[in-house]
Amino acid sequence: MVAVTLEELARRFRGRVHGDGAREIDGVATLADAGPRDIAFLANPSFHRYLDTTRAAAVILNEDDVRRFSGNALVVDNPHLYFARIAALLNPDPQWEPGVHRSATVAESARIAATAWIGPQTVVEAGAVIGEGVFIGPGCFVDRGAQIGAGSRLVAHVTVCRGCVVGRRCIIHPGAVIGSDGFGYARDGVSWVKVPQLGRVVLGDDVDVGANTTIDRGALGDTVVADGVKLDNLIQIAHNVQIGEHTAMAAFVGIAGSVVIGKRCTFGGRAGIAGHLEIADDVHVTGTSLVSGSITKPGVYSSAISCEEAGAWRKNAARIRQLDALVRRVKELEQKVQRLIEGEELD
Amino acid sequence: MVAVTLEELARRFRGRVHGDGAREIDGVATLADAGPRDIAFLANPSFHRYLDTTRAAAVILNEDDVRRFSGNALVVDNPHLYFARIAALLNPDPQWEPGVHRSATVAESARIAATAWIGPQTVVEAGAVIGEGVFIGPGCFVDRGAQIGAGSRLVAHVTVCRGCVVGRRCIIHPGAVIGSDGFGYARDGVSWVKVPQLGRVVLGDDVDVGANTTIDRGALGDTVVADGVKLDNLIQIAHNVQIGEHTAMAAFVGIAGSVVIGKRCTFGGRAGIAGHLEIADDVHVTGTSLVSGSITKPGVYSSAISCEEAGAWRKNAARIRQLDALVRRVKELEQKVQRLIEGEELD
Amino acid sequence: MVAVTLEELARRFRGRVHGDGAREIDGVATLADAGPRDIAFLANPSFHRYLDTTRAAAVILNEDDVRRFSGNALVVDNPHLYFARIAALLNPDPQWEPGVHRSATVAESARIAATAWIGPQTVVEAGAVIGEGVFIGPGCFVDRGAQIGAGSRLVAHVTVCRGCVVGRRCIIHPGAVIGSDGFGYARDGVSWVKVPQLGRVVLGDDVDVGANTTIDRGALGDTVVADGVKLDNLIQIAHNVQIGEHTAMAAFVGIAGSVVIGKRCTFGGRAGIAGHLEIADDVHVTGTSLVSGSITKPGVYSSAISCEEAGAWRKNAARIRQLDALVRRVKELEQKVQRLIEGEELD
Repeated sequence: MVAVTLEELARRFRGRVHGDGAREIDGVATLADAGPRDIAFLANPSFHRYLDTTRAAAVILNEDDVRRFSGNALVVDNPHLYFARIAALLNPDPQWEPGVHRSATVAESARIAATAWIGPQTVVEAGAVIGEGVFIGPGCFVDRGAQIGAGSRLVAHVTVCRGCVVGRRCIIHPGAVIGSDGFGYARDGVSWVKVPQLGRVVLGDDVDVGANTTIDRGALGDTVVADGVKLDNLIQIAHNVQIGEHTAMAAFVGIAGSVVIGKRCTFGGRAGIAGHLEIADDVHVTGTSLVSGSITKPGVYSSAISCEEAGAWRKNAARIRQLDALVRRVKELEQKVQRLIEGEELD
Repeated sequence: MVAVTLEELARRFRGRVHGDGAREIDGVATLADAGPRDIAFLANPSFHRYLDTTRAAAVILNEDDVRRFSGNALVVDNPHLYFARIAALLNPDPQWEPGVHRSATVAESARIAATAWIGPQTVVEAGAVIGEGVFIGPGCFVDRGAQIGAGSRLVAHVTVCRGCVVGRRCIIHPGAVIGSDGFGYARDGVSWVKVPQLGRVVLGDDVDVGANTTIDRGALGDTVVADGVKLDNLIQIAHNVQIGEHTAMAAFVGIAGSVVIGKRCTFGGRAGIAGHLEIADDVHVTGTSLVSGSITKPGVYSSAISCEEAGAWRKNAARIRQLDALVRRVKELEQKVQRLIEGEELD
Repeated sequence: MVAVTLEELARRFRGRVHGDGAREIDGVATLADAGPRDIAFLANPSFHRYLDTTRAAAVILNEDDVRRFSGNALVVDNPHLYFARIAALLNPDPQWEPGVHRSATVAESARIAATAWIGPQTVVEAGAVIGEGVFIGPGCFVDRGAQIGAGSRLVAHVTVCRGCVVGRRCIIHPGAVIGSDGFGYARDGVSWVKVPQLGRVVLGDDVDVGANTTIDRGALGDTVVADGVKLDNLIQIAHNVQIGEHTAMAAFVGIAGSVVIGKRCTFGGRAGIAGHLEIADDVHVTGTSLVSGSITKPGVYSSAISCEEAGAWRKNAARIRQLDALVRRVKELEQKVQRLIEGEELD
């Protein structure tokens, strides 16, 4: 267990101490659950009510909130970010020794950095390159010629297919599949003929890939995920997609083939993008929304419909099927009323 | 092959024999497919038509249905439940011997009950606790300090991450991931900084988790799935979600972070819940529906829209984009008509 | 590296050479990226603009397009199909030797064809049958009595559960689960009692299953996927579904229990079908659409709604909740206007 004083934290991550700088911290917690050696944070106004009763050793908050707080505090611009940094400091990843577990299967021609770890039951094929400080957990598969950049972590049961590239400091969660074949077929009468998928997946640095997420290799050319992209669980990225820097996607997002997505975009859970579209930088698509045309301007886009009590919904949903007819009825009414107003004869 | 008489079944599971109680049964089947040593069941009125022609040795049905049936029968209140019990009796899980397969990798400090089985290629890390009668199939990974309760079964390729808890008599299907990191990031300018995910996943007793379903560990505090919850395949449960007892979810359901769900709820396939909401007990959300506000009353909720022929749909869907304008047109018409009725001058 | 002349390609796959038949080809590429030893193809009119500037050794195109092209070409009816065949010829799968990797765990009673490969860390249980030329990659699990037909490939981390059948020349991508238990429970008061899932999954010949896709075994009777079906990643096929020949489904498609789907259907990404429905041959469901009633006629069906700017969308979405009331307002207006037109007294 690491222990640090408020003062040390303030010095290390830049922040202003309010109260007792010698107070020792050795854990992080929520305002509601914190004990007397924990630091908590306040980023969301709806948690103000916990400020008076928290037992936390100190609270990370901003200049506005510190005014109403009499306890110990670290005053910072971005409490959530600051909290993330302190939480990481106080909860370091478990230590591990480099090496290759005796139960792993590593091809002779694979190049494994001296500071890397290849876990139990993991398979590394010919020509793969595993960088410095890489941690490959149990049951992973790194196929021929794949590359894992320095400092990356494949947690467990991760598949990286032939020739694919994972950048530096990436985290790939269990069950993720990097570089499976894209869904490409040509028609031959009624049959489908597989189109060989010859490209790779190339992940930049600091890319996180969630559990059971799948990223398909390019058909011709590569599927490219730029630096700093964060993908949640159970996402599908089809072949030849390009995702710009620092874009983030929540669970179940589906991106069809050859879509080009800009930088700093966000996609809520279950958002989808149809194939071959382009999405500008700084576009935010709300959860459950479907993008079926290119988006050229930054902004927030949506087509999500919230549920209501099922009886009421059924009536409204049935009316959607009559909408076009309804619009025509309204148009006709408008014409009739206009003629009534103008005193014309109506038949 | 187990064989039992109708009488034995009636005694064992409580039910009334109608017809020949000495009739022997050694299998279960549908009414349509049953042979002369099978028992079938009738729970759904749409299968009445098979009653006259079924070759089944006996049929499980209720008091109403037995009146029109001349064959052998077990008369019970809940034929489907009764059938489930008989099917389990007649089709026991394959026998297995306890022990640790020679190809498994088990840390010295892991505690494995004498009656448990650790399958081939499976990895159990330091400090893990595997209870009595637990079956861990091939290629699983139980990380440090994780606990698997008595009688649970990890079918194959299951991942249980650090410190997570699986209760008793749970069934975890292939590819499920219990305790991957939640999707938590703080912004640092344009970059995302990972927020350490320090909580656990805690599954109660009798929880089933479907194939390739993912349940994220809590950020601070735990993700909690209560006793008797049943989760289908490819579900995503985000960090710090709480799911009440006996709630069931079909495939592709997505629950965003910190949602609190009551007891005995059901969620149809692809239903989704936005973050930080509360859902009361006994709420039923139909498939494909999106919950974007808390639900405080039991009931059925929906926002699903059924497909129609694409040409007609396209017209109606285009009108949705004009709905707000349409409502305003109708309002204006109403005012004009009102003035016409009142005989006022209109300009 | 294989190298072939245009003439050889034309002879092998049937096509007409336009230009220099002795031109050598050893790779495939897009029109935009092709180098002087690559062959490219033109199937989509939107790529016409690349014809003038491509550096490709030759282009595969149809009779219409060759008129405006002065370079070398293979003139064919279906350029995409032709391209798929040439790409496969020039990019053969990596060679492998048959055998069983020393780290694999194979039960004595499993029957492994002499020409098959069982990869590292893979587990094959008792009574399984592995056909001629089958390739089972690393970390797979083939449970008791399962059968893998000749020429099939399980790429890596694939699970084939007890007794399930994979046909010939199938490709199963990483993380796919064939034969997990269906989601079948009977109610016992508030609790769910598992209904044993006693059927199998039976895949025909030439079936492809995408990464992390799940196909549940039948409850009673089998889940059946016919010859030539192609399934993308992260699809869910529930118990007792039947899928007809040459049907194709994109990612995230979900098919609920006992649905019967015809031949040659296509389902766009995230399409869903509610339980117990029947879908005719040659039905095409667009992405994100929900089928909640049987479809008896070939055609295209949809319920997808495209996103728009979120502010505008919010207004329109709110109006959906008022649709039934709106329709009633319009009906009332129509009556009032009719009475005005007829000169009746209105109160």
